[in-house]
Amino acid sequence: MKGMEKFNIFFGEYSSPQILVVKSWFLGLFFRTLQFTVMVYLLWYVILRQGHQDTDTIVSSVTTKVKGIALTNTSELSEQIWDVADYIIAPEEDESFFLMTNMIVTPNQTQSKCAEYPTQKSMCTSDMNCTKGFKAVQGNGVQTGRCVHYSDSVKTCEVLGWCPVEKKVEPPNPALLADAENFTILIKNNILFAKFDFNKRNILPNITRSYLANCVFNRNTNPNCPIFRIKDIFEEAQEDFQTMAVYGGVMAVQIQWNCDLDQNVCDPQYSFRRLDKKDPESSETTVHNLRFAKYYKSSDGKVERTLIKAYGIRFDVLVYGEARQFSFTRTALSVGALLSFLTVADVICDWLFKLFFKAYKNKKFTYLDEQELVSNEYPIPLTESYF
Amino acid sequence: MKGMEKFNIFFGEYSSPQILVVKSWFLGLFFRTLQFTVMVYLLWYVILRQGHQDTDTIVSSVTTKVKGIALTNTSELSEQIWDVADYIIAPEEDESFFLMTNMIVTPNQTQSKCAEYPTQKSMCTSDMNCTKGFKAVQGNGVQTGRCVHYSDSVKTCEVLGWCPVEKKVEPPNPALLADAENFTILIKNNILFAKFDFNKRNILPNITRSYLANCVFNRNTNPNCPIFRIKDIFEEAQEDFQTMAVYGGVMAVQIQWNCDLDQNVCDPQYSFRRLDKKDPESSETTVHNLRFAKYYKSSDGKVERTLIKAYGIRFDVLVYGEARQFSFTRTALSVGALLSFLTVADVICDWLFKLFFKAYKNKKFTYLDEQELVSNEYPIPLTESYF
Amino acid sequence: MKGMEKFNIFFGEYSSPQILVVKSWFLGLFFRTLQFTVMVYLLWYVILRQGHQDTDTIVSSVTTKVKGIALTNTSELSEQIWDVADYIIAPEEDESFFLMTNMIVTPNQTQSKCAEYPTQKSMCTSDMNCTKGFKAVQGNGVQTGRCVHYSDSVKTCEVLGWCPVEKKVEPPNPALLADAENFTILIKNNILFAKFDFNKRNILPNITRSYLANCVFNRNTNPNCPIFRIKDIFEEAQEDFQTMAVYGGVMAVQIQWNCDLDQNVCDPQYSFRRLDKKDPESSETTVHNLRFAKYYKSSDGKVERTLIKAYGIRFDVLVYGEARQFSFTRTALSVGALLSFLTVADVICDWLFKLFFKAYKNKKFTYLDEQELVSNEYPIPLTESYF
Repeated sequence: MKGMEKFNIFFGEYSSPQILVVKSWFLGLFFRTLQFTVMVYLLWYVILRQGHQDTDTIVSSVTTKVKGIALTNTSELSEQIWDVADYIIAPEEDESFFLMTNMIVTPNQTQSKCAEYPTQKSMCTSDMNCTKGFKAVQGNGVQTGRCVHYSDSVKTCEVLGWCPVEKKVEPPNPALLADAENFTILIKNNILFAKFDFNKRNILPNITRSYLANCVFNRNTNPNCPIFRIKDIFEEAQEDFQTMAVYGGVMAVQIQWNCDLDQNVCDPQYSFRRLDKKDPESSETTVHNLRFAKYYKSSDGKVERTLIKAYGIRFDVLVYGEARQFSFTRTALSVGALLSFLTVADVICDWLFKLFFKAYKNKKFTYLDEQELVSNEYPIPLTESYF
Repeated sequence: MKGMEKFNIFFGEYSSPQILVVKSWFLGLFFRTLQFTVMVYLLWYVILRQGHQDTDTIVSSVTTKVKGIALTNTSELSEQIWDVADYIIAPEEDESFFLMTNMIVTPNQTQSKCAEYPTQKSMCTSDMNCTKGFKAVQGNGVQTGRCVHYSDSVKTCEVLGWCPVEKKVEPPNPALLADAENFTILIKNNILFAKFDFNKRNILPNITRSYLANCVFNRNTNPNCPIFRIKDIFEEAQEDFQTMAVYGGVMAVQIQWNCDLDQNVCDPQYSFRRLDKKDPESSETTVHNLRFAKYYKSSDGKVERTLIKAYGIRFDVLVYGEARQFSFTRTALSVGALLSFLTVADVICDWLFKLFFKAYKNKKFTYLDEQELVSNEYPIPLTESYF
Repeated sequence: MKGMEKFNIFFGEYSSPQILVVKSWFLGLFFRTLQFTVMVYLLWYVILRQGHQDTDTIVSSVTTKVKGIALTNTSELSEQIWDVADYIIAPEEDESFFLMTNMIVTPNQTQSKCAEYPTQKSMCTSDMNCTKGFKAVQGNGVQTGRCVHYSDSVKTCEVLGWCPVEKKVEPPNPALLADAENFTILIKNNILFAKFDFNKRNILPNITRSYLANCVFNRNTNPNCPIFRIKDIFEEAQEDFQTMAVYGGVMAVQIQWNCDLDQNVCDPQYSFRRLDKKDPESSETTVHNLRFAKYYKSSDGKVERTLIKAYGIRFDVLVYGEARQFSFTRTALSVGALLSFLTVADVICDWLFKLFFKAYKNKKFTYLDEQELVSNEYPIPLTESYF
């Protein structure tokens, strides 16, 4: 029976609040104005903050191409020309590449035995100071246990390794490839917003072959040219190329895509930033170098190598951003969430009218004393209970 | 006193709207049906649009391995076999790699002086036309200021650089490594959804060693095989391999992971797309090449190099997607936002019933005239004000 | 006229529910307590689940540097020292690099004709078994159609290719560079949260030059040191370095940045994981190797190469995480959505009070019978209709 009655009440009744209607142009207009203000504000808020749009993260592919030649003239190497095959260490043309600007070359190394480079730890006076089989952390090989002459005046422990060992010296200053500041980098970037099936390239459709052959990026005059002069990159990042060329460093080329697909706005924004900038209070040294070797075979068939400790600029092309597109779901969720705040108009009006109009208050409120309530304080029959 | 009264009203009163209950099966059923419809729709909406799930972005690692050998037979190089160590320029097996398909080789270059390649700008009739120290943008070295014979009939400015200079010629057509279309690429992909601590590989658990040794990806028959024949990739991307092999290009292998962890659905979807496709109206040329050199030491100890201008396909493995998992927070936020729309049922019923049932309207509404309101238009005693 | 009346009703009336006020400390306190509980819970929920914060995805740049030397002593190569220029295959110092730990070397290869390596498919007894021009999938060249002696007892089809062909043998065990477990990796990571214009490095500001020169990462004692010993990485990942060094593998160094910019909390968390771990039930073999060649020119000008099949560990530095910052929009949306649940307090109180207090129920509800409703069942004049 109980279930049946609940069923009757649930399906056989319709409940609705009783309403007091005040016929007053003043109150009506005041309320509607307030309601309208809140509504407009909420809608404006949803649209301004992109509450009506769905977002997607970027999928990016980058190829790069460096152009330029540099001339060096040192006592060791004499006059020499450096082209892209020489100064780009790995030729992959990836989104990150290393442009060699300075180097310490150790030519004609072979696997043999020789005196270690003199440091506080490697110097010795007799074989007693050297341990056979010991590998120093900063060393160039395995100690043989003998103490030999590095030069006329200095003796160091002998090592088995690539000999002669690399000299621990400061890199040349100014940098060997100081000319590199005039090199240019062509950056091709293809992006994909998979959710919206939208892809675009940073070589915009209106860019012609002849424009691409001659243009150089300039924030004011050529903001869409994908070719960057290294000098300009460093100026925008407020770094000094010549200093960084000596010791090396890491530089970011940032491409930001903030795409509003509803408004068909989707163009790349370029910016530049040094990535290995140390904190001002830090005593850390900022050096960027890497070692690689070119292997040769001498006429007697033995392998020798030229070891190159290369200082240079590592360029990282960082692509980020998001796309936004109208989404009914997002809009529904945003509007639904903000609708809660629409009652603000009701609450304010109610509070003001109650304060100023006694008749309104009298008609609106019905009072029930605690005595009346208590006198009936027993459970009401379940037949009348309402779920 | 004022504060005390406000306190009394706030804690000593309970307010609730007065309700008109219409005992009618017709109205009750109509309202419940409408309410039920809206509720089901909202729930369905939340679930269909994944409003009940939290999402996470992908963290991905890719390794690649190309297999295949090609035979070339040209007048310059005679019969020659190319294996993976020859045609993959950087052997890292990264998510992006360069497969050389064509090349212009300039062997036996040494640092010396020779005639620049003849172009409109480099040609000269006397030393007067050449500027010592000038580096042309598209040039191969630094001009020495002399005008010398490039061939019997042509004179160009002499440059200091890698000599002989590279010839500016069209790449061989058909491409040298036209055979490369039969090469295969094995792609291993490991993904991580950090928020859900979920990782998976594209080599699914049921893939056996023998299957992996023989299978080739096919969208219909072998959709889970991670080995791709280059020919098939180009066919799916609707590009012609032989054309692209001549001038080079950039091709994306896209792996999409759309994972519903609640339903335990998480498999990779492969697709292919050309990344350097130019806009139809653009006059841009689509060429992809890179220069690298092999360095040798001649018997007299001088360094010489073989410069290779390599045309080829850069493959980019782009991994994207997202994982979704039930989240109580998301559900609460979605349901909460959509609950606002549940009042739609109330508004519709109210409006209809008011329109058709006068008794309903009479009982529901109490009217207060502006005169009644104005006759009491003085602030009511604050003792009775309600916050 | 109809429009005018609707206009009058819309702007010239103010509607508000009629309210029953129960003057009872018991009911008032009960309701306020319940309301307060729900509110506190909702607020706590919003803040705990970051419903008040906006999030941004990470943009990351990584450089790596491996240090250490290894000594090998094999019959083929005699005593030899390996330094970073030897064992790191591509010297780019990228977020992913290959550390060679084992190898199969095939020296002095030239383009010529020789017997294929003996396998079931390549062995032959006469020229009849060999097909001129045939390229076997796993072969080393193009068959010439002749059947020649590979060794005194075995005959295989002759191929044109790099000769002598690589031997299909198991890699040395223990691995050649077993010493590599003592190598260290310095990882520099610069992250950017573009939306919040926030960037940070994993070399924290308080890290000094001398600390960086000597520290080694340890989860307990040195959790912020960015230098990792390979042995420790493998221990944390619960993998055996010596086994993996023989056949190669892929190892992830994961850097997680979970940044709460409101609380100024943003430090990297390091973890390690093997990426090519096979499923226990899979019969897949986990091997990671790559082939590369060093090219030499012999004294007569012919090119020869040393082919190296390198087994090793590919390290992938995977950077992920997100930043959160207070956002007024997010807070408004979250609070708005959850406000819907605040009515829970109303519903509970209403239901309880109705159940226990008959007077409350009598005063709150006004009943309208279906008969009363039906007796008036005609459309009410539109003049009085309310939108």
